[in-house]
This record gives sequence, C-alpha cells and structure tokens, in this order.
Amino acid sequence: MPTTRSVAVLVGSLRKDSFNRKMARALVALAPGLQMEIVEIGDLPLYNQDLEDASPKPAAWLAFRDRIRAADAVLFVTPEYNRSVPGSLKNAIDVGSRPYGQSVWSGKPAGVVSLSPGALGAFGANHHLRQSLVFLDMHPLQQPEMYIGGAASLFDQDGRIAVDTTRQLAERFIQAFEQWIEKMK
Amino acid sequence: MPTTRSVAVLVGSLRKDSFNRKMARALVALAPGLQMEIVEIGDLPLYNQDLEDASPKPAAWLAFRDRIRAADAVLFVTPEYNRSVPGSLKNAIDVGSRPYGQSVWSGKPAGVVSLSPGALGAFGANHHLRQSLVFLDMHPLQQPEMYIGGAASLFDQDGRIAVDTTRQLAERFIQAFEQWIEKMK
Amino acid sequence: MPTTRSVAVLVGSLRKDSFNRKMARALVALAPGLQMEIVEIGDLPLYNQDLEDASPKPAAWLAFRDRIRAADAVLFVTPEYNRSVPGSLKNAIDVGSRPYGQSVWSGKPAGVVSLSPGALGAFGANHHLRQSLVFLDMHPLQQPEMYIGGAASLFDQDGRIAVDTTRQLAERFIQAFEQWIEKMK
Amino acid sequence: MPTTRSVAVLVGSLRKDSFNRKMARALVALAPGLQMEIVEIGDLPLYNQDLEDASPKPAAWLAFRDRIRAADAVLFVTPEYNRSVPGSLKNAIDVGSRPYGQSVWSGKPAGVVSLSPGALGAFGANHHLRQSLVFLDMHPLQQPEMYIGGAASLFDQDGRIAVDTTRQLAERFIQAFEQWIEKMK
Repeated sequence: MPTTRSVAVLVGSLRKDSFNRKMARALVALAPGLQMEIVEIGDLPLYNQDLEDASPKPAAWLAFRDRIRAADAVLFVTPEYNRSVPGSLKNAIDVGSRPYGQSVWSGKPAGVVSLSPGALGAFGANHHLRQSLVFLDMHPLQQPEMYIGGAASLFDQDGRIAVDTTRQLAERFIQAFEQWIEKMK
Repeated sequence: MPTTRSVAVLVGSLRKDSFNRKMARALVALAPGLQMEIVEIGDLPLYNQDLEDASPKPAAWLAFRDRIRAADAVLFVTPEYNRSVPGSLKNAIDVGSRPYGQSVWSGKPAGVVSLSPGALGAFGANHHLRQSLVFLDMHPLQQPEMYIGGAASLFDQDGRIAVDTTRQLAERFIQAFEQWIEKMK
Repeated sequence: MPTTRSVAVLVGSLRKDSFNRKMARALVALAPGLQMEIVEIGDLPLYNQDLEDASPKPAAWLAFRDRIRAADAVLFVTPEYNRSVPGSLKNAIDVGSRPYGQSVWSGKPAGVVSLSPGALGAFGANHHLRQSLVFLDMHPLQQPEMYIGGAASLFDQDGRIAVDTTRQLAERFIQAFEQWIEKMK
Repeated sequence: MPTTRSVAVLVGSLRKDSFNRKMARALVALAPGLQMEIVEIGDLPLYNQDLEDASPKPAAWLAFRDRIRAADAVLFVTPEYNRSVPGSLKNAIDVGSRPYGQSVWSGKPAGVVSLSPGALGAFGANHHLRQSLVFLDMHPLQQPEMYIGGAASLFDQDGRIAVDTTRQLAERFIQAFEQWIEKMK
C-alpha cells in the first residue's frame, strides 16, 4: 500500500473569501490520495535578519518552518499582484528559506497554480514564483501549466469548480502532481 | 531657479545595518540637487483586502500612501531574496497600489538599484521589480542599469562608496536619474 | 504644425497571413498621425559575430540597421513562442544592437503589443521583450498594456479589429503611444 | 552496467571561438560517463509556419529535430544577448517545438549553463530560457545553478577551465546533472 504524501498548500491571497482559497479547497477535494493542508501565511512577520539573530525568533516563523519541513511537497495557489507574486506569499517563501543553509524548501516537489479575475491567469506571478523555485532547489511540475482566468465565476455554491474545462484541467493537474511527487521521492 | 524634486527611497532590506540601506544613504549623499528621503516599509501590515474594506484601515498603510503620493519620483534600492524581490518590498508596492484605481505610484519616474553580496548584483530582483513597474505605470530609468555585487566590501567607514568604479557608476546613475525626473515632469 | 513621427513596426511572426501582421496593419490604420511602416525581419541571417567581423557584412543586416536608425520610434507586435519572444524577432533585436557601441535602438520610445490565439495574450513574450528594452536603453510605453487573446477571431474581412473592447483598447494605445513619442523627443 | 545516456549540447553563440563553445567542450571533457555531443544550430532557417506547411520542409529543421529526439537529455550553454536568450538559440528551441503536438523536447531532463564576459553570468538568458522549459515540459536541473562571469579569462591553452572555483562548480554541476538524468528516466 502506497504511503499517503503530505502537501503543504500556500494561498497567496489573505482575503478570507478569496478565489485562491476557494481554488485551493477545490483542489484538495480533487485529491483524496494526497493529504493536503493549507498552511497559513498571514501572520508571518516580514522577514528581517535582525529578528533571525534575536532571541527568541518570531514564534510564527518557527511554526511555519516546521509545517513546511514536515511536508512531502508544496502547492502554491496564487493571484497576481502588480504582475508578480503577492508580497505576503513572497514573504512566506523568504521566511522558509532562512537561516542560511537551513531552507525548509530544498528538494521538495512543487506545484504552481495561478488565478486571476481577468483573462491572463496571473501568468506573471506564476513565472516569478518559478524563478524562486530554482534557487530554492524545488522541483516544479511543468505540465500541465495552470493559469486560470475568470476567477469570479469559477465556483458553484458548494465551492466546486463549475467550469468544465477548468475542472478537467484541475483533475489532470492533480493527477500529474501526484505522479510527480512519487517520482521525486 | 529649478524646483527641487522629492524622491521617496525604498530600501528592500529591513536589517538595520543592511548594505542596501548604506547604498541608499550613499546615493542620497551624491544627490544634493534632489530631496531624497528613505520611506520605511518594515511596519506595513501584509496587504489583505479585508483590511482595506475595514474601518479604520491600517494607519501605517495610510501614512505610507501619503508619503509616496507626495513624492515626485521613487528610487528602489533592493537586495535579491530567492532570485526575486524581497517580500517586504513587494508588500510595500502592493500596499501602495491599492485600493483599485487609487494607486499612489501612477505616472512617477522610478530608479532601480540592486545589490548583492555575491557577483550577480541581484539581477533577478531588479527585473522582477521592473515588471511590476509596467502595471503601475511608472517610468523607469533604463540606463545606466545598476547591478552592484560585492556589497560587503563597498563602503568605507564613513559610509561612502569606496570602490571607484561603483562610485563613478553611482554618480552617473544619479545624474541620469535627475535628468529623467525632469523629462518626465 | 507638428512633425509627423516615423515608427518602425516589427512583426514577430514570419507567417504571411499571421494574426500579428494583421494586428500591425490594423494599428497602422488607426494612426494617421504617425508614419508607421513594417520593417521585415525574415531575411536577417542569424547574428554571428564572425559575420560582423567579416567583409562585407551581411547586406540584410546593414539595410535593417539603417531602417531602424532612421525611425523615431519602434512598435513591436509579437506572438509568444514557448513562453518567450520568437527567435526571429529576438534575432532582429540582436542584429540591431551590434556592433558594440553602435546599437540602433538607443534612446528610442517603444510600444509592445502581444497577441495569442489563446487567452493569455502572449504575456511571456511581452515581458521578456521589455527586459531587453532596459539594456537597449529604449523607453517603453507602460500603459495601456496590450495583451490580446483570441487572435483567431479578432479581425473582419477588411482587416479591421472587429471586437469592440479590443478596438477601443487599440485606439487608446495608439493615442498614448503618440503622446509618449512626443514626450520622449 | 548502466546505460550511457546521450546529451544534446546546444551552444547559444555562433561565433567559432566563442567562450560558450569552449565551456561546452570543457563540460564534455568533465563528463566521461555521458555521451555528450554539440548539435549545431547556426544553419537553421528562422522558424516560419509557412515553411512548415510547405513541401519539402527545410532539411536542416528535420535533421535538427531528429538529433534532439534521439537524445536522452539536453544541455544548454548560452551567453546573454540584450538581457535574454540569443535569437539563434531561441530559434532552435522554436524549431524543435513544432509542428504542434510533435515537440522533440517533451519530457527530457535539461541543464542550463550561462556565461558572460562581465560579472553577471548571463542571469537574464538563464532564466528566460527556463521559462520556455516550462511550456516545453522539460525538467531542468535546479541546483547547482551555473552563472559564469569573467568568461574571457576562464580557460587555459588546452581549453580546460583554469579558474579553480569555476572548475569545481562545473564538476559538481556535471555530477548533479548525471544523477538528475537517471532520476528522470
């Protein structure tokens, strides 16, 4: 019997009812074979090396690092803010990457889903995030890419993806992501 | 007599003794013809639209937006975190860009200086930031580009740039930036 | 009476009936106040410094450089190939940038229009191209951005933009581009 | 006994004595366990779908596609032209990606080495190329990254890497690349 892999899901929008959070939940529902859990990033103090060198370090940083370290893989679900990754999500990435030599991201497989109200599907956030993954030595799933537009009319009242093509893409994505996680072990 | 232009300087590292802060100060010293002031970004709550819709909004956001709105131009001095813009600086950009339709960045000329301890000069941060400037309708100085490596051995005890080629580049940069600001008025 | 400005238009697809060529023509038709001409790039030998150092240099390179040098501004209309600028267009950019110190691009205002059959509007090509513009010391129009999706159903039988929102965006773009060219003189 | 894997090496500079070609050869010499061969890209006609639809298609395209298809992995060694991938290398990528649905790149592991005479190590070319790899469904080695500056003084008279830190990095890179290729099989 295969081991169930754990996936830390990071949502790039802090808004309580954000489309990205809905998408994260919809993806979790599509992946019964994975143990996916949203790891919150909204209470992480901005990264500052002076705080790293202080004692004690921010408790929220330590708890976040433990959560990521324990996961087999990471799924990023992100909007685009100003053609790039939201500062809040980038801050979480920065927090997890330190202190020097103790990054919690190294070697983990990663998935990137980007979502926008407009048509462009947050392409800019998706690829800026992928540039960080190179340095972090994370292994991103390449295909299928998931740029999702029209976020405001994607979900039904129960939070399921109501647009057929998007749901089918999401299903293919999750299936490929599961296989990628196994390959990377 | 020409008007003295005001420049808001944003430093992408929150560390008190950061090389980027030193570089920002050194650039201020090289620009007596500009009124340059560092605008702090370390106490800005992470952008969250729910806070935008709340009453009152975070006071630090409002104060920051006022400072940027009042400036004629913006100078970004940034390190690279994980091949991109630090989350803290990106968060400041996000905060200033909202609420929708009321961005404080629009139309302002901008300068981008990036700085790393290693050789690469924070190229990744420099250009990710520039991608955001497109959406923000800011007008970046293109040349000279300023990618500065070897940040740990750049400054003398008085905080001046001690490496000749870098100081000369900084002087050319400031001169071009002043002219660019005038052209954009 | 204002001088009519000349604009070299570069089309990133070599296909004779390409959507990008149609878009370029539609934009020309919307800009009676500009003297816009498509400069062909399909016969430029791949850049190779050994050919630069040879005698004679490729005639197509010299003719292309003369055409660009004579223009007041440059408009790029490009598809996306593999999430970036088509090799053919990038080659034209490379040819124009050499020999060292004699780039024909320097200081010119630029517009970037990107076009795809799918929804994403060739975002990746648009911004990779803009990264090159920094080094080339070209001054890009920032807003409005022009990412155009659904390229296959954009044009009527006379080559006009038949989708209202896209035509209106194109009109705003051309108007802003004209003003930007004047500002940059 | 393990199978020897074949690697197609693409060199982004067409100059006969280019630093990139020297680096490619030096890397080949460091990898006796791989069957690495430079695949030439300088005679590939610029991609044009009209030529794809013609009969016969350009012979150079067909030969190139066969060479890549037969390889187990691909190594890109590239300079930076105007802060991005040289047009000649991007053209080779475009040629290999077509016709639609028959890309020769899909699923292959990839290595990216970038090289510049200056300090920045062709960072811009390195990451623009990586953005294309996402669409191409290629699996890039993430670490160690290889940004090599100071290209003009890297090699000894026999073409070996004469700078110790760079040679050691190259050795680690090749070792990691070999392991990555095995993992991807």
